[in-house]
Parts: sequence; C-alpha cells; structure tokens
Amino acid sequence: GLVHIKNPHLDSMEEDVLYHLDLGTKTHNLPAMFGDIKFVCVGGSPNRMRAFAQFMHKELGLAGDGEDLVDICAGTDRYAMYRAGPVLSISHGMGIPSISIMLHELIKLLHHAKCRDVTIIRIGTSGGLGIEAGSVVITDTAVDSSFKPQFEQVVLDDMVVRSTELDKDLAEELLACSKEIPDFPTLIGHTMCTYDFYEGQGRLDGALCSFSSEKKLQYLRRAYDAGVRNIEMESTAFAALCGLCGLKGESSRGRFCLL
Amino acid sequence: GLVHIKNPHLDSMEEDVLYHLDLGTKTHNLPAMFGDIKFVCVGGSPNRMRAFAQFMHKELGLAGDGEDLVDICAGTDRYAMYRAGPVLSISHGMGIPSISIMLHELIKLLHHAKCRDVTIIRIGTSGGLGIEAGSVVITDTAVDSSFKPQFEQVVLDDMVVRSTELDKDLAEELLACSKEIPDFPTLIGHTMCTYDFYEGQGRLDGALCSFSSEKKLQYLRRAYDAGVRNIEMESTAFAALCGLCGLKGESSRGRFCLL
Repeated sequence: GLVHIKNPHLDSMEEDVLYHLDLGTKTHNLPAMFGDIKFVCVGGSPNRMRAFAQFMHKELGLAGDGEDLVDICAGTDRYAMYRAGPVLSISHGMGIPSISIMLHELIKLLHHAKCRDVTIIRIGTSGGLGIEAGSVVITDTAVDSSFKPQFEQVVLDDMVVRSTELDKDLAEELLACSKEIPDFPTLIGHTMCTYDFYEGQGRLDGALCSFSSEKKLQYLRRAYDAGVRNIEMESTAFAALCGLCGLKGESSRGRFCLL
Repeated sequence: GLVHIKNPHLDSMEEDVLYHLDLGTKTHNLPAMFGDIKFVCVGGSPNRMRAFAQFMHKELGLAGDGEDLVDICAGTDRYAMYRAGPVLSISHGMGIPSISIMLHELIKLLHHAKCRDVTIIRIGTSGGLGIEAGSVVITDTAVDSSFKPQFEQVVLDDMVVRSTELDKDLAEELLACSKEIPDFPTLIGHTMCTYDFYEGQGRLDGALCSFSSEKKLQYLRRAYDAGVRNIEMESTAFAALCGLCGLKGESSRGRFCLL
C-alpha cells in the first residue's frame, strides 16, 4: 500500500526539495506531518480547496469550526494545501502542466511521509455532454481529444504513451455513495481531457474561432458516441501519474452542460 | 494598432463574459476601465505580479505608495490583475493551458476596451542553458521540445501549427534598455517551451525519471546547439496567440542555470 516512486536518482539525493509546495525532507518532518493521510482531494481553485477542507473538517466532527485552517504551502502561491484529519485538500491550477508539477511533488511527499493505502480524488467543475446540468460524472477512463484512453507524455524529446484507466472499484463505491443522497444525479462515464479551453473544447466565444457551430456540434456528438460524458483539462495526466505510482485514483465532476 | 479578434461569432453575441477574469461587456465598462492601457506584463505567480505592479507604480511616480492596489479580478482566484497607470500586470499560472485561457480573455478585453498599440511582455523565471545564473534571456523565437519554432494547437480534433516568432524590434529595444543598467547580464536567444517541468525538462528529481544523467545532458546540449538559452512552459502559446491577434509580444527571463 505504499506510494511508488519510479526514479532511481532519488535514493542518492541528500535532500529532496518540493519547490512548488515549499516543503522539503530537510526542512520539514514529512512523516510526522503527513504519515496518517489516507485521502487526498485535488481541484483547480485554491479558494474552493480551502472551502472543501473546511467542509470535511465539519463532516468529520473535528474540534473547532475549521475557519482557521492554515495553508500548509503558505510560503508559495503556486498551490494551496489544507488538511482536515486524514484528508489532504490541494489546489492544482488549470491544465495538465500545472497539475503534473503538483502531482510529482505530492507523490514524493506521500512517499517520504511513508503514507499507506492512499486514495486520491480529483474534484471540480467540467463541461457535461448530453447529461443533466448539475450531474456528477465519475470517470472510469480519461480519454484525449481523439477519444483515445491514453496520455502522451514528452520525456526529453521522446513521446511516451501512458494508460489513463482509473480505479473501477472506487468508481463503483463513489456511485453507491451518491445513491444515498436524494436528488444527486450521478453517473459513470469517460472524461475527455483537452489542452485548450476555447478552441480545444469547441467553444465559439474565444479570441480565435475558426469552426462553425455545426462543426462544433458534430465533434461533441462524436465525443458523446465514444462514451464521453464530460470535458476538462487534467484527467489524463492525473490518471497516468496516479496509476504509475500506485495511487487509487478517481475523478471528476460535471456542472455545466455543453451538449 | 487595434487588437484583432479572429472569431466571426463574437459580433453576434449580446454579451461577452470573460469568465476566468470575472469581467464582462455588460457588467463592466471595459473602454473606461482599460482603454488607455499601453503595456501588459504577464507572469505565473499572482504575488509576483502584484509586487511588479507596485514596483511600476513607484517607477512611474504615481500618487500614493502603491501598497493598496486592488486586484481587478478579485471575484475569482483563477488569475490576479493589477494596474499601474498604462501598465496592466496579470498572473497566468503555470503551463500552456493556463496561460491560453488567460490570453483568450485578455485579448478580448483589450479588443472590447478599444486599446491601441499595446505591447505585451511575459516576465518570470526559467531555467537557463549555458548562461550565467541570473541572466535575463530576451526571446527572439519560442521553440517546442524538438527545437522547432512552432506551436501545435489542437482545434476540435485537428492539429493546427502556428508560428512562434516574437517582435524582433521590441527584443532589440529591451536589450538596449538592459545596457543602461550596470551588471545586468542580458542576451537574446531562443526559449524552449515544454509541457512538463520534470520529465520534459530533463530533471532528475521528479516522482518519475526514466533517463540517465548523461541522456539529460545530451538533450540539453542539443537544445543549446539549436540556439536555446532558456526553458519554460508558456512561450510558444504566448507567441502564437499574440502574433495572431496583432499584439507586439516579448518574453522572458532566466534565473536558474540548468546546464
């Protein structure tokens, strides 16, 4: 149940500085700070991840009102991190490059802290496809803009293709939870991950737009037919990194309705 | 000298909401708020862009000490925006997807505000290649991880290749400015833009690393031989979007030394 690091160089390093989290193995006692973490929830916006930590604080019945939660990464404004009992809540900004930096450093943090059996869940908004506005989409597989279940990662200048499957049991468990709450439309489906919000997701209101409304609808319908139920900008990298490092991972949430 | 929008759909829209800036054409008088902007400076970190706006406030000799500058995008935590006289200072987060969302909405903002002759400069840190630590690199051309002067943009599911040339006259002007300041090592060179900070830039300290120190150095040397003098994560998208929309654009800065 430990978190795997797949980097032979790390063992020979005297110190590991997690630059973008403003934490490190020499400056912080990571096992004492994080060793008992069992759940990590990540999302784009720092304010929302603070609000989520406060919500968890109350749900878990922890002492105090949770209004004074401290940003563990206060020394940097790249990301924000809060904890409520065994739950860590972290922001990741927008897009694959931004979430990737955070995940590399989070995975090393969990490894250094000797955490066991950690579940990681990405929460946040996304564009829904052919579903009721407000529905929650639990991702079974993240797909790229060609609807392929893969993440293409450039390593130096080589292209490496990685799997983007997420934990099916966890998806079913989350779906079962949703059924206990009345009027909480929830479904399992594929999530499409794009590099661009405007031209990449068929929006007609960017500074650039070279396609017609018909072309947009054709593309979104093809995505729907391929099993895509929502669109966002981080899921393929999230699925690939969590999968490689032995983290049970799940994503995501639909709020708007694009189709 | 106007900012070009290349989107025929925009004219027929009753309202344009710049979601991630928390601004809009019906809720804000954009020409009154921004019509006299001549310079836009963008960088990753919100705190640094606030500090830069305060610095500009003092440099321009504006009234007050600039300590109470208001975040124009205070209603959202996606980006932060400050102004000091004719200078707008905006954060863009990390990576191409994050800067792209901001630039789409910034370009529409400048267009709606009827701004003229706007110069946009990306400032920030980056990894230097074969240059003195602390040097400033002024980018002539942004290149991708294969050292090609292009930005590949997925539009729906088609790949479109865009030019990444920046304004050569502006680069020379900035270089001339640097010469007026003693001990300010500055040079013009290519800037390489990657989608990943760890595996994409040859770092040996990520959660994943499948290459040797020798392979890393070979890659960075090939980049140096291709004219690359610094590496960051936004310049190709910045150059492509600014170029297409008629903004005089320049980037970037080197702080660390990778080679």
